[in-house]
Amino acid sequence: MLFFTQCFGAVLDLIHLRFQHYKAKRVFSAAGQLVCVVNPTHSLKYAPTCCAAAQASTEQGILPPCHHHEAVHDPQLVPCTCPLFSCPWEGHLEVVVSHLRQTHRINILQGAEIVFLATDMHLPAPTDWIIMHSCLGHQFLLVLRKREKYEGHPQFFATMMLIGTPTQANNFTYRLELNRNQRRLKWEATPRSILECVDSVISDGDCLVLNTSLAQLFSDNGSLAIGIAITTSKVHSSEAEM
Amino acid sequence: MLFFTQCFGAVLDLIHLRFQHYKAKRVFSAAGQLVCVVNPTHSLKYAPTCCAAAQASTEQGILPPCHHHEAVHDPQLVPCTCPLFSCPWEGHLEVVVSHLRQTHRINILQGAEIVFLATDMHLPAPTDWIIMHSCLGHQFLLVLRKREKYEGHPQFFATMMLIGTPTQANNFTYRLELNRNQRRLKWEATPRSILECVDSVISDGDCLVLNTSLAQLFSDNGSLAIGIAITTSKVHSSEAEM
Repeated sequence: MLFFTQCFGAVLDLIHLRFQHYKAKRVFSAAGQLVCVVNPTHSLKYAPTCCAAAQASTEQGILPPCHHHEAVHDPQLVPCTCPLFSCPWEGHLEVVVSHLRQTHRINILQGAEIVFLATDMHLPAPTDWIIMHSCLGHQFLLVLRKREKYEGHPQFFATMMLIGTPTQANNFTYRLELNRNQRRLKWEATPRSILECVDSVISDGDCLVLNTSLAQLFSDNGSLAIGIAITTSKVHSSEAEM
Repeated sequence: MLFFTQCFGAVLDLIHLRFQHYKAKRVFSAAGQLVCVVNPTHSLKYAPTCCAAAQASTEQGILPPCHHHEAVHDPQLVPCTCPLFSCPWEGHLEVVVSHLRQTHRINILQGAEIVFLATDMHLPAPTDWIIMHSCLGHQFLLVLRKREKYEGHPQFFATMMLIGTPTQANNFTYRLELNRNQRRLKWEATPRSILECVDSVISDGDCLVLNTSLAQLFSDNGSLAIGIAITTSKVHSSEAEM
C-alpha cells in the first residue's frame, strides 16, 4: 500500500497531494513503491564558494579539494554537503545524515525503489529539490536542480550522491527514470561520493539533464515524477549486459 | 557475425573503421547486431522553409501544414523529407525511400536491432548524421543532428521517423540507447511520421537531447555509438509495464 511522505515539513493541500500521488502511482505501478512529494527550495548559494575554489585549483593542475573547507584542518572532517545553503558546519561523514535532517530538514526515505515527485517545476531557477534515500545499508542524497547554465534557458539536472567515500560509491548503480505520454527516459550511473562537489557534477553535466521542453513533456500538472532505484554493482555489469 | 556497412558511399580508412567497429561491438554485445558507421553531412538548409511556415501557422492557430509544400496541390504527394537539403522533389509516400536512397545516397539497414556509429562528433553545428532502418515491414529514418539552439552551446538531438502515416507510426516504439563509461541513457518513444517535420520535432526537443559534455562522456575517440531497437506497440505497454 502506498502512503504519503511529506518532505520539508511544509503544510500542503492534502487533496491536491492525494491526486498527484494517485497519478504518480499509476505511472510507477510497482506495488509497494513509496511516493515522496518533494517541495522546491529556492537556492540561497550561487555560485558556491567550495566549487569556485575547486575549479581554480583544477585549472592550476591540483586535484579539486572540494571536500576541504577552508577552515578544515582535520582531513577526516567534511563540510556541510547540503547544496542549498552556505553552511559553516563541518563534521565526520557518519554525522552528515543527522546534520542534513536536523539542520536542513531534508527528509530520509527507506526502500529499494521510490518515486520522487518534485512539485512546482515552473518556479524560476535556481531551485533545488532534495531528499535522502536510505537503501542497501547506505544513505544517498538525490538532488534535482533547475539552473540557468545558459542565460534565459533553464535546464533540470538530477544526480544521486552516496553519503560515503568514493570507494563505497563505486559499489552501487543508481537509475533515474521518467515515464509519461508514451515516452521514457532512463539514466543509469555510478553515484558520486558526497565528498565530491554536487555543484561540479551538475556543472560538468555528468547527470540526467532535461531541457525545459522535455521536462514539460514528462511533467503532470507542474509536477515531475522520477522513479529511483539503487542496486549493488560490485562487478559492474552495465556494459556487458546489453 | 558482425560486418561493416559503409554509409554515404564515402571511402573510409578500413583499419580505423575496424577498430571503431570492434569497440562498438564490445559495448553493444548482442550477437548478430549490425554496426553501421555513419559519416556526418554538413547541413545545407537552415532555417528550413517548411518549418518556418509551420511555425507561423501554429502561431496563428492553424495546424502545421509541414507536409504540404507550397507547390503541392495533390494532398497525396509529399515533399522530399530529407532534412539535409532544400530539395524540390515531391512524390507519393511509397517512393520516398527510393528517392532518399538514389538522390541523397542515404543508406538503408535491415535488422531489429542495429548500432548507429556516428563519426566526427566534434564537427561544428549544424551537422546531421542520417540512415534509414528497415524493420518490421516498414522503413524508418534516424536523424542525429548537432545544432546550436542556444548560440555558442551546440547540442545533439536524435529522433526516429516512420516513413509512413501518423496512424502507422503509432503502432511502433523505438529505443535509442547510449552505454559507455558505466553510464547508460535510454530514450523510448513512439516514432513520428515523416509527414511531420523533423525540424519541428527537434525544435520542440521531443527527442533524445544531449549536451556536449554528455555526448563527450558517451563518445569514444570522436564517435558516438547509439543502439537502436524498434518494437511493435499496438497496445502501448510502456507506462503499464513499470
